[in-house]
Amino acid sequence: MRKVHVTGIGSTTFGQHSDRRIETLAVEAGEAALADAAVDRAEIGAVYLGNFVSGPLTGQEVLAGLVADNLGLPDVPCTKVEGACASGGIAFRHAYLAIATGQCDAALAVGVESMTQAPGERVTAALNCAMDNRSDGVSGLTFPGLFGMAWRLHAKRYGTTRAQVSAVVRKNKANGLSNPLAQMGRVISDDEINQSPFVCDPLQLFDCCPVSDGAAALVLVAADRSYGSAEIPIKILASAQTRGAARIAGHPDLCSFGATVAAASQAYEAAGIGPSDVNFVELHDCFSIAEVIDSEDLGIVPRGEGAVWAAEGRTATDGDMPINPSGGLLAKGHPVGATGVGQIYEAVLQLRGRHPNQVRDAAIGMTHNLGGTGVACTVSILGRADA
Amino acid sequence: MRKVHVTGIGSTTFGQHSDRRIETLAVEAGEAALADAAVDRAEIGAVYLGNFVSGPLTGQEVLAGLVADNLGLPDVPCTKVEGACASGGIAFRHAYLAIATGQCDAALAVGVESMTQAPGERVTAALNCAMDNRSDGVSGLTFPGLFGMAWRLHAKRYGTTRAQVSAVVRKNKANGLSNPLAQMGRVISDDEINQSPFVCDPLQLFDCCPVSDGAAALVLVAADRSYGSAEIPIKILASAQTRGAARIAGHPDLCSFGATVAAASQAYEAAGIGPSDVNFVELHDCFSIAEVIDSEDLGIVPRGEGAVWAAEGRTATDGDMPINPSGGLLAKGHPVGATGVGQIYEAVLQLRGRHPNQVRDAAIGMTHNLGGTGVACTVSILGRADA
Repeated sequence: MRKVHVTGIGSTTFGQHSDRRIETLAVEAGEAALADAAVDRAEIGAVYLGNFVSGPLTGQEVLAGLVADNLGLPDVPCTKVEGACASGGIAFRHAYLAIATGQCDAALAVGVESMTQAPGERVTAALNCAMDNRSDGVSGLTFPGLFGMAWRLHAKRYGTTRAQVSAVVRKNKANGLSNPLAQMGRVISDDEINQSPFVCDPLQLFDCCPVSDGAAALVLVAADRSYGSAEIPIKILASAQTRGAARIAGHPDLCSFGATVAAASQAYEAAGIGPSDVNFVELHDCFSIAEVIDSEDLGIVPRGEGAVWAAEGRTATDGDMPINPSGGLLAKGHPVGATGVGQIYEAVLQLRGRHPNQVRDAAIGMTHNLGGTGVACTVSILGRADA
Repeated sequence: MRKVHVTGIGSTTFGQHSDRRIETLAVEAGEAALADAAVDRAEIGAVYLGNFVSGPLTGQEVLAGLVADNLGLPDVPCTKVEGACASGGIAFRHAYLAIATGQCDAALAVGVESMTQAPGERVTAALNCAMDNRSDGVSGLTFPGLFGMAWRLHAKRYGTTRAQVSAVVRKNKANGLSNPLAQMGRVISDDEINQSPFVCDPLQLFDCCPVSDGAAALVLVAADRSYGSAEIPIKILASAQTRGAARIAGHPDLCSFGATVAAASQAYEAAGIGPSDVNFVELHDCFSIAEVIDSEDLGIVPRGEGAVWAAEGRTATDGDMPINPSGGLLAKGHPVGATGVGQIYEAVLQLRGRHPNQVRDAAIGMTHNLGGTGVACTVSILGRADA
């Protein structure tokens, strides 16, 4: 496998863009990434676009080819990939593989979603496309229901408290406040969190990521090719993709997602590092309790201590294991297909040393994107040139 | 690139399965392909599933992981790919690449669509997800409109007649009659075709493929690995994927699809053969006139003579260039995401010498899958072990 670099990044703001067509969001991000990489468009040999529910929500598919055409890219293979909320991470991995396996020397990965123009009930129905609707869907479970159950189990087993989980919310909301791309950064108090409406007990409003529009894009190039990028190339040390149980009843333990554990294990092995070598993580905090569970599944926090670490400030940007300095899904937003690509965007900014919430001496970063009820997962590890 | 074989094939019938969930169709085809290959499920290292509009029509996404879970496959990367009507061909190509580039030794490609349970107007709206809806969609064009215009231009330029195009319909309908998987095989007369309602002048009812449900699946293995398949392995000689213009106005000529021409050219080069070496073709006859244009774009029929060749019987199963011995989309049916995988299924049956409409001495076969208004295309070339 050839070594691959990320040389260009681009993103729209995440938030409400209900006045814009989905492909224009993707094109804006793509243009920014191409300009950032200073790559000749003719060099792009493959396009992978991550998207989850453009069909039901916007009536527009074939987005990969449509976006490539609008970007003036060559007539190369253009593929939309889907794995629910992990669609963006899957797009990144396939762009990486296209270069690593020698199919081309440069590729574009794009992630995009447009959700806020649809009525709320249609968005909820679309999000439930990520469930096994023969078993879990008909049970009346939604995603807040799943993560509410996970929280209850975590609380019972490890003594996790509302106040500890609120530390995740406060941290990510505050991080989002400094991130110009974020949808819902703010300073928030424990009282405000406690007084917010229940979505699915124990999950309250601020425990849930918002509905978002947005796009992110990345230019990847073979490490042995120089494209005169103005930016320091960032190394891709690992890119893993796994599958977990499709039905909730298929998970032996709701306090852990097997797909995350497996993807992290594969990524560490490929990168030749362990959890303690990671300087920061952008992970899939679709709900506050998801950050707690993900951090334990990734091995960066001891099992059962995810919420304790957040409460102790150890996952803050200046803590020993910074998590979601971008604000994460909770504050940056969650335009589903864009999220996984946006996480790499944030990681690259960190490794360039130019993130608005810069982690000190960030040399190795990890990203984690989880789809459905844990049925799809990607974990990527990126490193500074000297890492 | 390692050499790759198709060792197992499976398919549901194409037609009306409105009483069945989409994933059960995919699982039926997958089980059949796994049994046919006699492969150990634990050997499957990647799953690619082609699907176009499951989100809007059935409310079920994450189909790749869901189907893999239901098939009892290992927790390997599972990815849905989408490129409108070329989704199945794209799934096959990615399963091929996963093995050819050494990521795994065996992979499953599945294609599936469930359409007939939805009301007709929802199906039409879903199919239009394949258009650029900012430009072409708002013009009022549907796919029959596009191919109606193409027919008019072909008729004006080459003198193509209704009677010649009807020969395509008669051939494919008759071929479908012998194919147990086909939805709408029948003996049909020119009079019946002429008296059928107009869909979009000059396209009449029997010029249009039906709305279909169905699934097809393939097991691919590295040629250097023996899995004790009961069947003769079929060689993959080439698998090409290209992009064309996303907007209809972007095509310089509606009598040709650039993505088909480019994919065919790349496939011939990769296989080291020319059009005259091909013994039969399964191509994308979503409309009768599409078969005419595709056959010319693939170089297997001289430019402008596609309809003439059909009328002269040269594209019949016993002709010099058999086209769509399966019945094609017109008679076998067009469960969109399944079509490209189903074409390979048909080609493998031919190369095994066991097709119900067997082409004599079939040693090399080609398949062609076209998406949207020509925005995505795959062309694959398969060969008998001795080819």
